[in-house]
Amino acid sequence: MTLSALPIENLVAALAPLLGPQGIITEAAGIERYTVDFWHQHKGTTPLVLRPDSTEAVAAIVREAARLGVAIVPQSGNSGLVAGGIPDGSGRQVVLSLERLNRIRAVDAAGGSLVAEAGCILADVQAAADGAGRLFPLSLGAEGSCRIGGNLSTNAGGVNVLRYGMTRQLVLGLEVVLADGRVWNGLRALQKDNTGYDLKQLFIGAEGSLGIITAAVLRLYPRPRERRTIWLGIESPADALRLLSLFQDHLGELISSFELIAGLGVEAANDHLPGGRRPLAEPHPWHLLIEVAWSLDGGLDVPVDRALEAGFDAGLVQDGTIAQNEAQRTAMWLIREGQSEATTKVGHVQRSDISVAIADLPALIARAEAHFGKLAPDVQLFPFGHVGDGNLHFNFLIPRDREGVPELRSLLNEHLMMLVAEFGGSFSAEHGIGRLKRGELERRKDPLELELMRRLKATLDPTGILNPGVILAAPDAPASREIS
Amino acid sequence: MTLSALPIENLVAALAPLLGPQGIITEAAGIERYTVDFWHQHKGTTPLVLRPDSTEAVAAIVREAARLGVAIVPQSGNSGLVAGGIPDGSGRQVVLSLERLNRIRAVDAAGGSLVAEAGCILADVQAAADGAGRLFPLSLGAEGSCRIGGNLSTNAGGVNVLRYGMTRQLVLGLEVVLADGRVWNGLRALQKDNTGYDLKQLFIGAEGSLGIITAAVLRLYPRPRERRTIWLGIESPADALRLLSLFQDHLGELISSFELIAGLGVEAANDHLPGGRRPLAEPHPWHLLIEVAWSLDGGLDVPVDRALEAGFDAGLVQDGTIAQNEAQRTAMWLIREGQSEATTKVGHVQRSDISVAIADLPALIARAEAHFGKLAPDVQLFPFGHVGDGNLHFNFLIPRDREGVPELRSLLNEHLMMLVAEFGGSFSAEHGIGRLKRGELERRKDPLELELMRRLKATLDPTGILNPGVILAAPDAPASREIS
Repeated sequence: MTLSALPIENLVAALAPLLGPQGIITEAAGIERYTVDFWHQHKGTTPLVLRPDSTEAVAAIVREAARLGVAIVPQSGNSGLVAGGIPDGSGRQVVLSLERLNRIRAVDAAGGSLVAEAGCILADVQAAADGAGRLFPLSLGAEGSCRIGGNLSTNAGGVNVLRYGMTRQLVLGLEVVLADGRVWNGLRALQKDNTGYDLKQLFIGAEGSLGIITAAVLRLYPRPRERRTIWLGIESPADALRLLSLFQDHLGELISSFELIAGLGVEAANDHLPGGRRPLAEPHPWHLLIEVAWSLDGGLDVPVDRALEAGFDAGLVQDGTIAQNEAQRTAMWLIREGQSEATTKVGHVQRSDISVAIADLPALIARAEAHFGKLAPDVQLFPFGHVGDGNLHFNFLIPRDREGVPELRSLLNEHLMMLVAEFGGSFSAEHGIGRLKRGELERRKDPLELELMRRLKATLDPTGILNPGVILAAPDAPASREIS
Repeated sequence: MTLSALPIENLVAALAPLLGPQGIITEAAGIERYTVDFWHQHKGTTPLVLRPDSTEAVAAIVREAARLGVAIVPQSGNSGLVAGGIPDGSGRQVVLSLERLNRIRAVDAAGGSLVAEAGCILADVQAAADGAGRLFPLSLGAEGSCRIGGNLSTNAGGVNVLRYGMTRQLVLGLEVVLADGRVWNGLRALQKDNTGYDLKQLFIGAEGSLGIITAAVLRLYPRPRERRTIWLGIESPADALRLLSLFQDHLGELISSFELIAGLGVEAANDHLPGGRRPLAEPHPWHLLIEVAWSLDGGLDVPVDRALEAGFDAGLVQDGTIAQNEAQRTAMWLIREGQSEATTKVGHVQRSDISVAIADLPALIARAEAHFGKLAPDVQLFPFGHVGDGNLHFNFLIPRDREGVPELRSLLNEHLMMLVAEFGGSFSAEHGIGRLKRGELERRKDPLELELMRRLKATLDPTGILNPGVILAAPDAPASREIS
């Protein structure tokens, strides 16, 4: 660890009175968990973790860091998948954890909004909305541990995007600590406010590189009163698209989730995930997990049954079941959400998060099956994801005893990205860029767009102290700064 | 007109071969309509209107203008309400009309998107979506003449925001000509794409001051199969809020419009608007126009009747009717959309476009009635607007023969803005800033937010040639440049 001791010591000295013993971690044992990513695949280094419990404390930290020229890595739930919330390997970046900034400041059921601090766990935000008879629709696998600041900073997606949009669509207002430590209070709960440039859009999805989000006004929705969760065994991704079209025809805007899962992934969950059980008696080549909901009081079975009948009549469904209670529903979602975990028990998993036009999904999958069948015949594909959004986690399973796994990972990724680019798709649909996909960004993004991004960064963080190396390369960063 | 002749002549000479005779207007008679705003209340001056018919031609114009230092005012449908699309009074600003850039480039029904050029009339975009069995939900009074470039640049609202959000929520990708004439092609149709800063958000709602939007990928939705349009006579704004809550309880996400109209405005439309007729037999103090829709095939009457019954049972509804056919529906919307036009036939109208928290609407209206009853007893209030979004067009009717109308307009506006500020509301909910509300913006906006806005402007339009004086003051602008 190349530790530039003096600025760090000065930072600690300046902040200790404000943050107190709970707010400063300097021992290696305490620091460890803030430097390792969700899948324990990447590790950075830091001499210091700061844990402020108020917006004012965050602002004070940034002011001091700016004065001393110390780089800050904002972190909330540390469940990101692109190493955007852990420090690099230089030992010069300080982690600013928002986990103690975790109050729900207000809930306005009638106005349909809620004010949450950045460190609130997503499940707690959902519960606060539910307690007021409302729905906060953001939902994803990590909802029990991810925190809303990270969801906002990565513009998180999840399983309800089809109906409610990405996190960006769920934000009415923000409170942000800027790169010079000033606080921008944009916590407006107004549904409509066209008074100049919409500054909050800059900070959503910027991964903490343009400012540090400390709180947000989030949009609440009517809470569904009736919900049907449906599991179908099907033949192919093409049939999945035909069923999506058929379901949209019968159920339109009532569909909140439309998830495709490869048979291999379902079997892996069935065999290896604690509590995982395939909802259908037999294996199928592909599966769909569909959720439909409305806020009316009764009657949802009628259009759902009509849609299912039409699917069976058209020969698109091999077998299917509807969850009869919350336990069955949870069991279905466990299979879907446990895809990554289940397959890690079978071999090495190479993950991805791509999107293409919805209509192109079957062709992309077919092309990939043929391509990787030749390129790496011992590697298995198990794509799963949000077919209603054109977003697949196109993952690969590498045999446990395979040699040269790091090189194979790079090869698989490189070839997948080429295929996705052929279809005009995105190499990061919902996970963001972080440190892991920065090279991809530099290679694949329109140079004009990169230039505009660099100009925005220079405008909002001119000294480059906010999460340097995330999304864009720090101007002076040597390669050795990278995480391992 | 202080005309700086040389740069303009050079601009015309350089662009004539590219734009052809249809693309250049220099005669005063032809120019006139590009310099006057929608309500014929404001007028600017320009020596030149350019009418490119391709993105490349727009880019060429901006390149030449940048080289010669000529300011450009982008204009599409010229139906804006804040003089953001007409030139100032200096005679030094050239109008760039996008009306010939009006092709629908593509419609993808399965993928739920459509590519429209900036000059497409909103009604034509709606029709293209409808022709593909889909809905483009943006809808507002001027939809027969406003153009999508202006809708995007002002982040237009309208009557369906409650359900589908503002224009910003309806955009997947953009094509933008930057201040140096380079073209940013961000026409991606991907539903999810978290690859770096979301640049399109910068240009939406920026009123042409950061770049010129030339085309957009717009999001389409399932087309409603059943719709009910309901007109209710009610006692008070407080009852309107109670009914909103009751309808949301019974119909949740199916409500697309929930419009409140003062009795005075309905009577004005009944008496003075061609074809206008009050949908109910008797006058009422206030009226609600509610629209409910879903994409299912039959059965919507059941929850609608339940909601209406509950409203009557609770004593919240004095009288009501449901449109039995498209003609009746159109007649109802005519009353709502004709509010401004109808009242101009009775006297001078002072308009506004404010929003507050939904729960504060009744208190704001009561406070305003008391306040203006004393301040200007001969002035009548006729607020109308989107109560489901907290957005009111809080308009005033000034007697035709009143003296000192301009001073009274300023007084009414100033006092209304003070009241709105007391409630933490917005002084421009959906119309934007343009030239007319720039002073309001400078007075009422957090200085930090203004600073950030100025930094963005300097970053994206460093020489200040894009719509100078709109949203932000042009750094060197003398007062004489203002419109009359």
